[in-house]
Amino acid sequence: MAKKDNISSSVIQRLPRYYRFLNELDKEGITHVNSGELARRMRSTASQVRQDFNCFGEFGQQGIGYSVKSLTKEIENILGIKNRYPAILIGAGNIGTAIANHLTFENRCFKLIGIFDNDENKIGSDVADLTVQSITNISEFCKSNYVETAVLCVPKTAAADLAEQLYNLGIKSYWNFSHYDLKLLYPDIVVENVHLSDSLMQLCFRIKNNTK
Amino acid sequence: MAKKDNISSSVIQRLPRYYRFLNELDKEGITHVNSGELARRMRSTASQVRQDFNCFGEFGQQGIGYSVKSLTKEIENILGIKNRYPAILIGAGNIGTAIANHLTFENRCFKLIGIFDNDENKIGSDVADLTVQSITNISEFCKSNYVETAVLCVPKTAAADLAEQLYNLGIKSYWNFSHYDLKLLYPDIVVENVHLSDSLMQLCFRIKNNTK
Repeated sequence: MAKKDNISSSVIQRLPRYYRFLNELDKEGITHVNSGELARRMRSTASQVRQDFNCFGEFGQQGIGYSVKSLTKEIENILGIKNRYPAILIGAGNIGTAIANHLTFENRCFKLIGIFDNDENKIGSDVADLTVQSITNISEFCKSNYVETAVLCVPKTAAADLAEQLYNLGIKSYWNFSHYDLKLLYPDIVVENVHLSDSLMQLCFRIKNNTK
Repeated sequence: MAKKDNISSSVIQRLPRYYRFLNELDKEGITHVNSGELARRMRSTASQVRQDFNCFGEFGQQGIGYSVKSLTKEIENILGIKNRYPAILIGAGNIGTAIANHLTFENRCFKLIGIFDNDENKIGSDVADLTVQSITNISEFCKSNYVETAVLCVPKTAAADLAEQLYNLGIKSYWNFSHYDLKLLYPDIVVENVHLSDSLMQLCFRIKNNTK
């Protein structure tokens, strides 16, 4: 019944939010939800919700709504959540430590298998149940462990220095907090950039203009 | 010449990126840039760049391009960067500490004036040149200091407990890392949510489907 080939990128972008709300409903013991209630939580419209779910072949039952569990499972399949892609993280500072904890304890998409830093004070310490390794080990580690994804929690200049090495080690996907534009040099990689300063500037604009 | 009333939200969303790239150019000592070069850095098209800048009345000169400094200044004005809105941060864990440092040392939109936590081990310690205060001080602090924005770096349940207090203290803008949907209860506030897990799920989907 699924029509996955047709799912537009705008629907895909909304799926993580649906997933979060469905998880909440599940925790609250709610087994079925109608498009109106989901729309209210998403601050969307019931027709948008129905249209989104129709895209991947989920149709709510009249009077009962959607099954929370089966909808959750469908979204998990589409997004590939639970794939547990092996990931390494570079930069065990504050943001790196926060992200390492998030990866280890709050997500099922990735499995964090190594943390690296160049700071002698951090190497050997424990972060998110792993021991921080020297950045000089990274090449050997990636050759003896399959690594799908690198999480860059280093300053921009350090990311620039690391990029070629990681790319040559075969790492083709990145969760990038570094502000370094990896994609410019390596167009064949997959990158999800997190630019906290962009989010902050948007907030600034919205305060200035009182944009709700 | 500026036509600010007409700037669409999609242009506004691109402005922080332009701003970052213009800052880079400025650091490289580049005084003028044409739409083609900016488009290359933005992975956009020259005509998109020209169209965006036309929206707010900036026109590059034939053969010279745009002045990096005046374009930067114009974007600063539109976004309200340098407004230095007074902000408090709640939750001095790893993510909170990273964000506090970012706010204090890497941005000019906001001025961090207070950090609060409920953990006795954190209260009294120094983070980003401020001393972490007990969360029980928050009401008094907000009454004696003007606070525009609260940055929530606490778990979802803690955010739910805090929301009413902060709202009643008159705080109407939030940078929200907590996953708690503030906007649902308080539709008149301005919120910029940062959902790291959504970003991670998008990455997961793009790896699974090899979406560059």
